[in-house]
Amino acid sequence: MAARRVADHRPQADRLPRTKGERTRERIVREAAQLFNTYGFSGTSVADVSAATQLEKGGVYNHFESKDALALACFDYAAGLVLDRIQKAVEPHASAWNRIQGLFEVYRQLADRSFVKGGCPILNTAVEADDTHPALAGRVRRALDAWRGLLKDIIDKGVADGELQTRVSSDEIATAMIAGLEGGVMLSKLYRDASFMRTMVQQLTIYLHSVVQAQGR
Amino acid sequence: MAARRVADHRPQADRLPRTKGERTRERIVREAAQLFNTYGFSGTSVADVSAATQLEKGGVYNHFESKDALALACFDYAAGLVLDRIQKAVEPHASAWNRIQGLFEVYRQLADRSFVKGGCPILNTAVEADDTHPALAGRVRRALDAWRGLLKDIIDKGVADGELQTRVSSDEIATAMIAGLEGGVMLSKLYRDASFMRTMVQQLTIYLHSVVQAQGR
Repeated sequence: MAARRVADHRPQADRLPRTKGERTRERIVREAAQLFNTYGFSGTSVADVSAATQLEKGGVYNHFESKDALALACFDYAAGLVLDRIQKAVEPHASAWNRIQGLFEVYRQLADRSFVKGGCPILNTAVEADDTHPALAGRVRRALDAWRGLLKDIIDKGVADGELQTRVSSDEIATAMIAGLEGGVMLSKLYRDASFMRTMVQQLTIYLHSVVQAQGR
Repeated sequence: MAARRVADHRPQADRLPRTKGERTRERIVREAAQLFNTYGFSGTSVADVSAATQLEKGGVYNHFESKDALALACFDYAAGLVLDRIQKAVEPHASAWNRIQGLFEVYRQLADRSFVKGGCPILNTAVEADDTHPALAGRVRRALDAWRGLLKDIIDKGVADGELQTRVSSDEIATAMIAGLEGGVMLSKLYRDASFMRTMVQQLTIYLHSVVQAQGR
């Protein structure tokens, strides 16, 4: 279930767009996603998107009926890049513990150079949209639900397989990991210093050792 | 040093403004801080501040030469409310462990009802300003430096007094606590669900137990 929801967010990089219109639409989303993620929804106008894509404003509106519709598509695209990267980092590993290490590695990389200009789209959009844009906030909740589901599934499967024993629920562990990692992104971005992210991964590992016992570790 | 820096951020609620001009200036900051903290710097115009304060735009500009100058004053005011609340919650306790519990209590309350409309000004402003507004980002770093200093001082004093023994540096513990708490604020705000914050405080307490040993606990 969680895996399916994550898959919904994936950019379809593995197939070529069929028509010129589709290619233009994807280019608008790619360029605009960087603007929204860097300057925010309020800080980005359709004129900015027009300038970045070198399309007339009407050309942008041909593909998206409103700035709102464009922003939702851009968030789904940008969150999809992050969730896709997380899933790819997790999949090769058979053990739950190594899957979590794969996830941490994504965040260590994210602090050095983000996949999307402007940092983590989930954090950025959550903080801007919570009081101001219900539709966008809903998309962020959907992305976070998918991510929390993926983490819970990893831990639950580790427990079911007899690999892990947990002192607290998989839901609590997933919440602590997501909050800690996103807080680490906030600090690394603000200070432009990846060491905050590395510190967070180390401290989250210490936390995990105290709530999760792994067989044969 | 940290205490002095925190004090710099405190709103001067303990003395009455002397002149009508001072009172007006403080009212502008109070009203505008709520707007900036809810709608962001990009999402708030001087016209919005004028409407909220029922002053002409010229009346706002009498006190602040620009939207930038107003935003900086508003951030200092809002961050000061948070840091002041943290310091008041920490001060009554003699032991380092109880001081940290006092801090957690502030965050549990912050999730139920924030002191400033719009949530945590440090998180909100960090995420918006990091790529877009160097002066504002600098103020957020100053506020976070003060907060991290306050946490480090609590832990370092606990160690010096023989109350605490730590497995990792006070700097790493302070970073983990700040990132975890701010990530918890992000989740609680986005889902409008204070249970995320309570979960984070519980999980941070588990983490603390594994990096800090307190005598007589």
